[in-house]
Amino acid sequence: MTGNPTTSPWDDLPVRDELRGKSPYGAPQLDVPVRLNTNENPYPLPEPLVARIAERVTEAARHLNRYPDRDAVELRTELAKYLTRTAGHEVGPANVWAANGSNEVLQQLLQTFGGPGRTAMGFEPSYSMHALISRGTGTGWIAGPRTADFTIDVDAAVRAIGEQRPDVVFICSPNNPTGTAVDADTVLRLYEAAQAAKPSMVVVDEAYGEFSHHPSLLPLIEGRPHLVVSRTMSKAFGAAGLRLGYLAAHPAVVDAVQLVRLPYHLSSVTQATALAALEHTDTLLGYVEQLKSERDRIVTELRATGCEVTESDANFVQFGRFEDSHAAWRAILDHGVLVRDNGVPGWLRVTAGTPAENDAFLDAVRAIRKEINR
Amino acid sequence: MTGNPTTSPWDDLPVRDELRGKSPYGAPQLDVPVRLNTNENPYPLPEPLVARIAERVTEAARHLNRYPDRDAVELRTELAKYLTRTAGHEVGPANVWAANGSNEVLQQLLQTFGGPGRTAMGFEPSYSMHALISRGTGTGWIAGPRTADFTIDVDAAVRAIGEQRPDVVFICSPNNPTGTAVDADTVLRLYEAAQAAKPSMVVVDEAYGEFSHHPSLLPLIEGRPHLVVSRTMSKAFGAAGLRLGYLAAHPAVVDAVQLVRLPYHLSSVTQATALAALEHTDTLLGYVEQLKSERDRIVTELRATGCEVTESDANFVQFGRFEDSHAAWRAILDHGVLVRDNGVPGWLRVTAGTPAENDAFLDAVRAIRKEINR
Repeated sequence: MTGNPTTSPWDDLPVRDELRGKSPYGAPQLDVPVRLNTNENPYPLPEPLVARIAERVTEAARHLNRYPDRDAVELRTELAKYLTRTAGHEVGPANVWAANGSNEVLQQLLQTFGGPGRTAMGFEPSYSMHALISRGTGTGWIAGPRTADFTIDVDAAVRAIGEQRPDVVFICSPNNPTGTAVDADTVLRLYEAAQAAKPSMVVVDEAYGEFSHHPSLLPLIEGRPHLVVSRTMSKAFGAAGLRLGYLAAHPAVVDAVQLVRLPYHLSSVTQATALAALEHTDTLLGYVEQLKSERDRIVTELRATGCEVTESDANFVQFGRFEDSHAAWRAILDHGVLVRDNGVPGWLRVTAGTPAENDAFLDAVRAIRKEINR
Repeated sequence: MTGNPTTSPWDDLPVRDELRGKSPYGAPQLDVPVRLNTNENPYPLPEPLVARIAERVTEAARHLNRYPDRDAVELRTELAKYLTRTAGHEVGPANVWAANGSNEVLQQLLQTFGGPGRTAMGFEPSYSMHALISRGTGTGWIAGPRTADFTIDVDAAVRAIGEQRPDVVFICSPNNPTGTAVDADTVLRLYEAAQAAKPSMVVVDEAYGEFSHHPSLLPLIEGRPHLVVSRTMSKAFGAAGLRLGYLAAHPAVVDAVQLVRLPYHLSSVTQATALAALEHTDTLLGYVEQLKSERDRIVTELRATGCEVTESDANFVQFGRFEDSHAAWRAILDHGVLVRDNGVPGWLRVTAGTPAENDAFLDAVRAIRKEINR
């Protein structure tokens, strides 16, 4: 959200004070040839998977008059198998919970472990929904420190946790919008600091985990009941339209979020579609490999143009530095390519698209570097 | 939720104090021949609609790598047309908002207009999620009065609103679990009291509106920007598995809830499935007419057995009175029929099912009335 000092349509309604003067979160949706602004996967689902979704949804639709499986047991079982196979740690359905996008997973975690009179801390710049969902759940927000290269300043972070004693600590790895993964040692030091301070819950947001050069942080949940790893099918599974997020943690965490989840929150069609996608994991992870290779190419070629680039483990790349990043965003848009201005001064973010989309982006950057000053 | 004084799996986790000792909301899910406990529509969707859902979802799945329409414009347009055609008042997409079940609609309303430091009032017994979602959003809950016949005691309610000055007032019509619709005069008096007191938002929950003997309260939103009507496709559209709730109100209310909605909360498959169902409105409303007729039969036949029955405008009927309603629930279950014990002392609730299911239920009641004392 951005500040908006002018009048809003809800000015005459009794909305909460902290919502006044705000506007809804969301990237501008513009109709341009190349859209690389919301970290979507550029590859449509393969047709055999589309057909399987139609089959599974048809079956679900025949029972649509009934409520969905409230506990989504089959889906959680398949998500657990996927994590066990790909994330280096064995988990079962009791370790896994799913909701409508990782945003709803995070909202449920904050309703359970944050909320009024409690606080959450994240290290900014990071995924801005962490702060927004905190506000939406009445949780106080504390912005923690990063270094100039956008990694977490571990000593400063440990001090901040000890002083501020947040109830929830967010660690985004790979971090959005900067792109770099967090190493396990950093997570462990922050976890220990959080336990010494309160104890607090530590939420590792691995929305982009499959794109990383490094293994998942999932194995760290072993023996650490206050550590949660959140994931999504939006990116690696090419299913942003599906809205399926999930978490893995100690079974007690899964039990606890059920105190606040809305009953039957996950529709039968969502469960059916996600199960179909999980049957096609290998094909979809093949697309991930292509995107990782393109992401690495974008990093290399941007640097060749003289851009600074943050190390990326995600399906997007942060690049700069621009004296006026919004002017640079506009100039790239004038070349038909929509990237994202996340409000990090001097920097922009581009999603790895198809090779042709990435070429168009790289051509646009080369062109604007001739046109505008750094 | 019910109190649970024994240990819970999350006792060692830092969950919020008010969640300790609670258990998750939800009806017991038992495998019995006749399930009349969750107000589901007993009629599966017709096969032509199932086929249309498959078509629309197939098309959506081909773009599933992209985020859904964040504002669900097509769906809101069709919902507005449906309301205009069936609810006696012309509305457009700017008046309508949709989410994952009316529970999520209500949660968004409470995040916007309730929340920490604010209160909501409902007249109990009523839909228990009103209180639970209030707690989940940090909103204080105030239980307002009903009369012995379960209608709202209007004078007492007006006084309660004036004294307690709630920020949100819930009016459930037809009321769940008691079944009776609320008349427009009552809503107007409560609305005026709420405006004089604060002003507050008044939310009319019409989840069962299509089953009523009386017209929708929707026309009351005209000129009343603090009045919201919420609806669902779970019941009249036979789509409990879809999780599609919506509201109609002044456009400013729709704008305001977008400050707290999670971005892209409504998946592409949900939007596609709901749009398919809306194409088959007339067929589905035909089922509603059958259910209304069965509902009226259940009322008549229950009264013939000597039961007391609350006036019903819904697809369910509250009946009693039992000295021990839980024992009566158990006895009916022993006859293979699952009804709902909503915790209203002396009373149970039965959903109108197919004629055969309703016969099985009525047979069970006749049998237990021979077995147990009233």
